[in-house]
Amino acid sequence: MTLVVVTVMPKKGVLDPQGQAVQGALAHMGFAGVSDVRVGKRIELEIGGDDPAGQATRMCEDLLANNLIEDYSVEVAG
Amino acid sequence: MTLVVVTVMPKKGVLDPQGQAVQGALAHMGFAGVSDVRVGKRIELEIGGDDPAGQATRMCEDLLANNLIEDYSVEVAG
Repeated sequence: MTLVVVTVMPKKGVLDPQGQAVQGALAHMGFAGVSDVRVGKRIELEIGGDDPAGQATRMCEDLLANNLIEDYSVEVAG
Repeated sequence: MTLVVVTVMPKKGVLDPQGQAVQGALAHMGFAGVSDVRVGKRIELEIGGDDPAGQATRMCEDLLANNLIEDYSVEVAG
């Protein structure tokens, strides 16, 4: 089994309401000077068989990411 | 401004329904040999002022993570 880490983030220029909510809450709590908050997903998977990175890429294309509004990256962690 | 990346993951041993849902969906789609799927958050913030890592740690304690069920890590990306 290979640990693979998939990161899915909203594309630049795409509205990120979750990031805006976090940024507003932080400002409200007194954290000044915080900007450009983006909230995405980190998905850790144990993948067996050949080519875990390739499998993870296919999983992103088919399920884990929405290519219209999200970018993804795949990292084999070991 | 300093780019800080906060990663929030469910603690080991804590039920992760989102991870289980992803794992079930992947199996259903024919991806065999996938196990231990965990889904967490990746939060990117631009932080001004002194000690951006310390500020981000306080944000995790106060808002971004739930210490009962989640672990967080803070990385200063530049």
